[in-house]
Amino acid sequence: MSGLNAIAGIGADQRRGGYSRHVFDDAERHLREWFIEQAENRGFAVETDANTNIWAWWGEPGPGAVVTGSHLDSVPGGGAFDGPLGVVSALEAVDILRERGFQPRAPLAVVVFAEEEGGRFGVPCLGSRLMAGTIHPDHARNLRDADGGTLAEAMRSFGADPARIGRDETALARIGTFVELHVEQGKGLIDLDRPLGVADSILGHGRWRFRFSGQGNHAGATLIDDRNDSMLPAAHLVLAARRTAAATPGGRATVGRLVPTPGGTNVIASTVDVHLDARAPRGVRSMVDDLAGQAEQFAAQEGCQVQVVEESFGDTVQFDPALRDRLRGVLDDVPVLPTGAGHDAGVLAAEKPTAMLFVRNPTGISHAPEEHATAEDCEEGSHALARVLADLAG
Amino acid sequence: MSGLNAIAGIGADQRRGGYSRHVFDDAERHLREWFIEQAENRGFAVETDANTNIWAWWGEPGPGAVVTGSHLDSVPGGGAFDGPLGVVSALEAVDILRERGFQPRAPLAVVVFAEEEGGRFGVPCLGSRLMAGTIHPDHARNLRDADGGTLAEAMRSFGADPARIGRDETALARIGTFVELHVEQGKGLIDLDRPLGVADSILGHGRWRFRFSGQGNHAGATLIDDRNDSMLPAAHLVLAARRTAAATPGGRATVGRLVPTPGGTNVIASTVDVHLDARAPRGVRSMVDDLAGQAEQFAAQEGCQVQVVEESFGDTVQFDPALRDRLRGVLDDVPVLPTGAGHDAGVLAAEKPTAMLFVRNPTGISHAPEEHATAEDCEEGSHALARVLADLAG
Repeated sequence: MSGLNAIAGIGADQRRGGYSRHVFDDAERHLREWFIEQAENRGFAVETDANTNIWAWWGEPGPGAVVTGSHLDSVPGGGAFDGPLGVVSALEAVDILRERGFQPRAPLAVVVFAEEEGGRFGVPCLGSRLMAGTIHPDHARNLRDADGGTLAEAMRSFGADPARIGRDETALARIGTFVELHVEQGKGLIDLDRPLGVADSILGHGRWRFRFSGQGNHAGATLIDDRNDSMLPAAHLVLAARRTAAATPGGRATVGRLVPTPGGTNVIASTVDVHLDARAPRGVRSMVDDLAGQAEQFAAQEGCQVQVVEESFGDTVQFDPALRDRLRGVLDDVPVLPTGAGHDAGVLAAEKPTAMLFVRNPTGISHAPEEHATAEDCEEGSHALARVLADLAG
Repeated sequence: MSGLNAIAGIGADQRRGGYSRHVFDDAERHLREWFIEQAENRGFAVETDANTNIWAWWGEPGPGAVVTGSHLDSVPGGGAFDGPLGVVSALEAVDILRERGFQPRAPLAVVVFAEEEGGRFGVPCLGSRLMAGTIHPDHARNLRDADGGTLAEAMRSFGADPARIGRDETALARIGTFVELHVEQGKGLIDLDRPLGVADSILGHGRWRFRFSGQGNHAGATLIDDRNDSMLPAAHLVLAARRTAAATPGGRATVGRLVPTPGGTNVIASTVDVHLDARAPRGVRSMVDDLAGQAEQFAAQEGCQVQVVEESFGDTVQFDPALRDRLRGVLDDVPVLPTGAGHDAGVLAAEKPTAMLFVRNPTGISHAPEEHATAEDCEEGSHALARVLADLAG
């Protein structure tokens, strides 16, 4: 797909495979420049808002705008499609409409949201959450990346003013509807043998950090009975998270990031940070409350302590049924799918009529280099998005 | 203690606490420069050997030398005493002898061994192992640090020639006896209420890397039943290692380093490297064989694979009983202690009469910032080492 080919060289991760593109790093800045150039080439007015989301306007910015777009950042070692496909498809849909001589009656904008994956500062959909005011600016400014730097510092080095972040009434007031196209991250469309679908819901989703603290010590000289090894309760928690998720209808719980300190092979870990990603149609917080209770026990068994911090939370999202049905009408009754993945569209759904279009992923794998979409399905997605935009803005 | 005070500012780790001083990094180079300056100030001839160990000679280098010393590198976030105390005490013992007008009849050398902790390239006692030929030079040259760089590359950037590493007959031929002073890393001397002790043995010790491989995927969109999450068998292995060690007389097994890839919170880990440190008076390899069998089962349960690599191994060491008793005679029947910690002295014990002197650690904690020795005990250690050197070289 031409748009994705143009950015295929940016942020490739030689160690992990796939792409690592994190907010304000070199790759992500490069992608921002690429997007701005693409938008300006089309004669669009481009602005980066106070929360570092980028807006490209076809026509005068104004209320009732039809907005489409996605994000350009990735998870560490992520696929090529998650995020960028929605941005590239938005540009291609606009091109299709312009070639047809379509004149939008409503303002039309393509948006790129910042830090959707939370890959650097830990909170997913950070750009849209800030815009919607669902994260406190003080809390956001003090988020830290793995190197210990704050969001405020990273924003300043990017040239943005961290004092200005927070709920953006101007940006919100302009949005009439929001439609996000995204590669599907599960197997729903494979099973249905269909290239496209629309979303009906997003699982409730949060991230929690469990910090187990014990006593760092020598791996050889310390008797087993003398240990307060924080890796032990951490391992118990990983297994408990799986059991708890399996016992929760539709539940998922994942530990993909686990960081022992100091991290030496011959050193008993003094602390281990277990980053828990938990999701379910209902009851995510009660899953995590249950795990927090178990974690206390695991820690106590080893003479350790545990501290649990909720880093982000978003309740289950039901997308606007009227908008969803309008898309299905335009798109020949494409199937309706739930999704376990979080999206900026899920944040905006609390504010505005919002919809999502999914493009089939033949591997069913996402957040990994194997993520894929065929050129044919991507093209079909762009054309479908063009029809949706024409319907909404025409 | 004046010598340790002189290097107290080098390599302090702000994030972990304590010190991070790894072979050829800025801090370790700075420590090498400090040692060379100290030795040259005393009129010693200093040479860095082909394996990057540093030798400071009082008198002509030659066969039958009495050698003392230790190492200057640390584990990540380690204490101030593990390694440097033996080097500083060696210099102080020499000063005590020189002030007394002592003239050694045998050559006397202070040695600093490289990469004793294996903190950068994973193999402990790398400098002494290379010198003794117990690690193959090709294997050593290809060892990689966490950033993926090889030992060969790091040596070249340090200004050393990786083609020259390996068994060093010249260096070995010069050594008559080796005595290493070290902070105690357990509670033996606390329990005995004695400031000093001599070693009788070192536990058998090795390091193994268990690499679990599954399928990286999306933490929200992937159903529990569809997962091949390599973190699950990794967590099972952590718990199994504890059970196996507890069931082995004198056994220890530790996972202080565990590295998921790609390491994103919202990403199921495609691989997890579990770095196992295992030790026991007897049967370390059979402990690990048992764990490798369990790891196969843990992996299979999750649809994952596991690959086990032995990164280093050293069998149980019994120090030379005659030399040990000679030290006890000189040092008023100091107590005899086993140790669970590995040391360069353990590597040399296979080649030469070798002994170790331990200085009490009032916290009983090592490989952590809490590691300690009082100024009084350190001074007693330096004087004891001086008496031992005078006895051996007089």
